[in-house]
Amino acid sequence: MTESMTEPKTESEYRPAECHEATILLERARAEVVPVLRAAIGSMPGPLRRIGLYHFGWENADGTPATGGSGKAIRPALVLAAASALGGPAARAAALRAAAAVELVHNFTLLHDDVMDRDTTRRHRPTVWTVFGDDDAILAGDALQALALRLLAEDPHPASRAAVARLADCVVELCAGQQADTAMERRDPGEVTLEETLAMAEAKTGALLGCACALGALYAGAAAADVAALDAFGRESGLAFQLIDDVIGIWGDPRHTGKPAGADLAARKKSLPVVAALTSGTPAASELAGLYGAPHADEEDLEYIALTVERAGGRDWAQAQAADRMARVMQELARAVPDPEAAGGLLALAEFVTRRTA
Amino acid sequence: MTESMTEPKTESEYRPAECHEATILLERARAEVVPVLRAAIGSMPGPLRRIGLYHFGWENADGTPATGGSGKAIRPALVLAAASALGGPAARAAALRAAAAVELVHNFTLLHDDVMDRDTTRRHRPTVWTVFGDDDAILAGDALQALALRLLAEDPHPASRAAVARLADCVVELCAGQQADTAMERRDPGEVTLEETLAMAEAKTGALLGCACALGALYAGAAAADVAALDAFGRESGLAFQLIDDVIGIWGDPRHTGKPAGADLAARKKSLPVVAALTSGTPAASELAGLYGAPHADEEDLEYIALTVERAGGRDWAQAQAADRMARVMQELARAVPDPEAAGGLLALAEFVTRRTA
Repeated sequence: MTESMTEPKTESEYRPAECHEATILLERARAEVVPVLRAAIGSMPGPLRRIGLYHFGWENADGTPATGGSGKAIRPALVLAAASALGGPAARAAALRAAAAVELVHNFTLLHDDVMDRDTTRRHRPTVWTVFGDDDAILAGDALQALALRLLAEDPHPASRAAVARLADCVVELCAGQQADTAMERRDPGEVTLEETLAMAEAKTGALLGCACALGALYAGAAAADVAALDAFGRESGLAFQLIDDVIGIWGDPRHTGKPAGADLAARKKSLPVVAALTSGTPAASELAGLYGAPHADEEDLEYIALTVERAGGRDWAQAQAADRMARVMQELARAVPDPEAAGGLLALAEFVTRRTA
Repeated sequence: MTESMTEPKTESEYRPAECHEATILLERARAEVVPVLRAAIGSMPGPLRRIGLYHFGWENADGTPATGGSGKAIRPALVLAAASALGGPAARAAALRAAAAVELVHNFTLLHDDVMDRDTTRRHRPTVWTVFGDDDAILAGDALQALALRLLAEDPHPASRAAVARLADCVVELCAGQQADTAMERRDPGEVTLEETLAMAEAKTGALLGCACALGALYAGAAAADVAALDAFGRESGLAFQLIDDVIGIWGDPRHTGKPAGADLAARKKSLPVVAALTSGTPAASELAGLYGAPHADEEDLEYIALTVERAGGRDWAQAQAADRMARVMQELARAVPDPEAAGGLLALAEFVTRRTA
């Protein structure tokens, strides 16, 4: 840790004593899933293939090979860890296509979200829409969704059909989450409730992590109750992640987060700590509402807004909520995978997800 | 027929002596598929559901009931007719979800194409993006693709898994077709070949009609060769349709087509007759290239451009190609469904598709 504008409590509180296991699981998942992803992207006709190869960081825009990373592979690692926890190495091996399918869906949503949010950088490279245009980004996203569901449907595994239905259902939830997010950003801060902000975060972030774990369980032939418990495990991990990510988005160190301190406040984002603060009924809440209604602020103003969110209880609420979600994560995991040895991988990944600083 | 700027030969040449059978098949398909579509749309969370209900013409933007049509249901009718031709009434009844899934995919592409093409009217109503914004139109389209594949995956029919894989594969082809179309429109008319224009039309228009017929065949438990023949039947019908649609887009009667005469020329669209004319190597081709490079033209100019396309052989080529495709349609149909009685429905629909004037 180096010095920072405000001490990132969250990072130190949640900083892992040891995340070696998660790192190994993620590396292994990447090594196994990337060839499946490349084959899927490679099966597309020329221009769509080029956009896909660029997006995943395997090619530059001109078609020359690139060495950019294709992402952390958290979702594939969750699929594989869930299959392994409930069905051992055979189930884990069988779930490889499902792991790749979940990653394709994740990347389909990134392509479309970047168009909608006008985000210009993704994994330290210009986003697809900035390089190829909106139309190509939309079409490549559409194609990735189709590739994901085709990959699962072509899988001869007995869980294939149920997995397609579940992943497609998750896509509807992801779309609803993104819809709620974009609609919420257009509304007056005073009109947004904490309940709907949490529901949005669950749909946008929790749903796919939950689905990843549920697919792993399905491929292990797990009972419906265990599939549901692993879905809840993934969802709660996702919510814990979002809460911590939102805290970092306000008080985090830009050298760790990769975005300027207070960026979420500068953009007037209705993130979870902000909505918790705005709806706290405290005097600081009224002050915050006034500050959030005013136009763009300088760095000093942003520090003051961050302080006001904190005084209105937004930071404490988010950290308590995150801790509460992590407790539920443990509960759901213990319910589905009572053997701590078998549950170790999933737990390591959940802790990795919620301790990330960038 | 009433008087028109230029005599729409195509319409009269292809005008059906009798399309009563197709009308009955389409009405019956609509009556059966609409409840399945409404249930699928109704399963989505609030805002996405509202957008879906608006797009299909069942609700106004404010949520009040609307009486707009949800489209002709040509693709669902093809699924049901193909299942019926190869498997009789039982296969037809079993293929209902597949019929709805194909229509959902069609509507997903309409939602996204309208955003990309900035089309403001669809089925005589403002397009979704003009009413709800681009983001909501993109997200509703994404959700419709997922609903389509979920509907098929949840179908307990033994063909379900193969049908999901085939429909998802078709989506990739549709995306590639739309990608080629948008990319082609940005290119210099002189650089576009007839071969790639035909390939684009096949991917954009033929693929889903082919897939509709193939899904019907799959649900009838047909052999791979028959599934392939029905796919080819649908594809060739789609190409014939596109050729005729492009002819109507230049020489059609606006009172029948619903768009102003010469609209495709005014927009400098690289439609099939235009590309055929441009690549004909005739003196008229060079003249056309000059005319197409010039800025927007008035009505008199458009009539002259249309005449130049005709002099360069674009109209004759398109009509001969359409006739050739229709011959292949008959061949493929006879191969898969030798009994003319059983093939009647599919033939009536193919003729309806290629004889439409609006």
